[in-house]
Amino acid sequence: MNIYRYEENPMITPVDVKPYHEGFEVIGAFNAGVAKYKDEVLLLLRVAERPISENPDIVKVPIYNTESKEMIIKEFDKNDKNYIFDDPRTFRSTDKVEGFSYLTSLSYIRIARSKDGRNFTVDSEPFLYPFNEYQSFGIEDARVTQMGDTYYINFSSVSEVGVCDSLVSTKDFVTFTDKGNIFAPENKDVLIFPEKVNGLYYALHRPSLKSIGNYDMWIATSPDLQHWGNHKHLAGVREGHWDNGRIGGGLVPIKTEKGWLEIYHGATSESRYCMGAMLLDLENPTKVIARTKTPILEPEAEYEKKGFFGEVVFGCGGIVNEDILQMYYGVSDTSMACCELSIQEILKQLEEEM
Amino acid sequence: MNIYRYEENPMITPVDVKPYHEGFEVIGAFNAGVAKYKDEVLLLLRVAERPISENPDIVKVPIYNTESKEMIIKEFDKNDKNYIFDDPRTFRSTDKVEGFSYLTSLSYIRIARSKDGRNFTVDSEPFLYPFNEYQSFGIEDARVTQMGDTYYINFSSVSEVGVCDSLVSTKDFVTFTDKGNIFAPENKDVLIFPEKVNGLYYALHRPSLKSIGNYDMWIATSPDLQHWGNHKHLAGVREGHWDNGRIGGGLVPIKTEKGWLEIYHGATSESRYCMGAMLLDLENPTKVIARTKTPILEPEAEYEKKGFFGEVVFGCGGIVNEDILQMYYGVSDTSMACCELSIQEILKQLEEEM
Repeated sequence: MNIYRYEENPMITPVDVKPYHEGFEVIGAFNAGVAKYKDEVLLLLRVAERPISENPDIVKVPIYNTESKEMIIKEFDKNDKNYIFDDPRTFRSTDKVEGFSYLTSLSYIRIARSKDGRNFTVDSEPFLYPFNEYQSFGIEDARVTQMGDTYYINFSSVSEVGVCDSLVSTKDFVTFTDKGNIFAPENKDVLIFPEKVNGLYYALHRPSLKSIGNYDMWIATSPDLQHWGNHKHLAGVREGHWDNGRIGGGLVPIKTEKGWLEIYHGATSESRYCMGAMLLDLENPTKVIARTKTPILEPEAEYEKKGFFGEVVFGCGGIVNEDILQMYYGVSDTSMACCELSIQEILKQLEEEM
Repeated sequence: MNIYRYEENPMITPVDVKPYHEGFEVIGAFNAGVAKYKDEVLLLLRVAERPISENPDIVKVPIYNTESKEMIIKEFDKNDKNYIFDDPRTFRSTDKVEGFSYLTSLSYIRIARSKDGRNFTVDSEPFLYPFNEYQSFGIEDARVTQMGDTYYINFSSVSEVGVCDSLVSTKDFVTFTDKGNIFAPENKDVLIFPEKVNGLYYALHRPSLKSIGNYDMWIATSPDLQHWGNHKHLAGVREGHWDNGRIGGGLVPIKTEKGWLEIYHGATSESRYCMGAMLLDLENPTKVIARTKTPILEPEAEYEKKGFFGEVVFGCGGIVNEDILQMYYGVSDTSMACCELSIQEILKQLEEEM
């Protein structure tokens, strides 16, 4: 696989983003959804901010009360034996055997704009800021599906009641229409196909399962983009492979003559995130035709290996120009990068490795 | 609360049900959905069967291959240090911190019929037997919502890929139409309202959350009963109460002049299951008007306290005759019982405790 990483990488980093909250610092500008709007490339950045803490032993947790529109900051002592601080992103109380009680930062969606796809200007205000009670811990990892002149944007809504996937639509990236929580918790990595297949909308999704089952990819149908059903298991983690820990949709599925090309992410059980590809039947996307045995992109560059949470490449969107896929991807839960790949090469790898 | 428990209780027990599988024993006939069909009361029993094991140290796990239609029996030694055998219903491998790897029995749905609502005859064949790959570990806890002459039956589909909620419809309780998995895993205790509210179908559901959130009740809407969205958090577990561990819908919501009356189950963190009530706004069922502080039914009778998994009353269906609610309920994950309650008394308790 020939990968052309842009010379500008990492093209957007936390220092390029002015904190929206006073007394906060930006620790991440990453995992952006991507849209082509008018003559610009828009990156719907996930911006993660946290209250500045002078004391390294104190973790300050930002929680946004969407009703009163107040930011509440809770303080925790890292020596507090009631909590386990073993992840920079989250921590949990000792009575929880897994998962998290709090996030160490609050994310929301902010737009970065570019005419050339390489040099971006970051908006000074958020585009999607927590606007209901399902988002008091933040909004994460937007994906954008364009249909005609409407852009459907879905993202994770995180709060103490769970992690839902929510949908809004926009025509101008200024105002938006709320379409509610489209997938019940716990679900992430929802990718809506860009057109109906046999009269129904399709979406990939990735439930997180408590009692039984793995972090696998599922697929569902919808008559209206708001209500989803007919849930089917699509693809699972693979023991002994680079995607043995968890998988989830990455980019909006790309229509090719061979099938729907889905660029997905997979992680090892040690949380090393790579991107792979699968090919789904054009007429019946619940059928996996092929899946790459090896990643198409893995953390190799310094900015992909080191950061807030290292060894992560995480693509949430791309732009297709004939054979060239420009894939924008988050690196190390910190910054944004971009690379170009040949769709024909990916399809060839899929054919060889199927 | 005046509770009239039937003299026939427990009215159906495992010895009343002939095993469907050779070499198996019935260990449970419980958690039945309820339908009034023609002049009969139908109980859609969850029948749990397990392979007879001569050796108390050997656990035999039944798994049904829905493609080849073969029952596979896996054997596990209770002394095997790779598994933790701390629950009669399930066990897990030591690399799982919670949840289960296998069930110790396989459940399916079998109908019991009665003219008087007290004396039942159990069909000799299953009505709903695992029919797709999401059900290889079984079908559990049916609920029945009647609309006109169509009965919608939803239930848990359990397999190694997760626990989904699935829907079928029937007009005769002989044949049925498969409507697919209507809620993605992990979800249980789905209760479909018996009529549309403001043009949409409604259902309660109970996701099981891995990372954050409790075993709470949610509510969703649908245009067609198959696709669900607009997921909202409805009611949570209550610290210090009888329902501090988990809650979930019980009976199909009952329309009253005061609102939708939902009889739900709640359990302590030690898994003592009781039934409580909540009242939802008639025009907007996402709004909880009142909720009982104390249970309306709790395990008191011997058959409710002792059994395969004791201290459980678990209602999945009922029949309303003017003020009388005949509630059929599973006891101790073993048998079926029935009691009569006054709807006005429940509404009065709701008013007093709101």
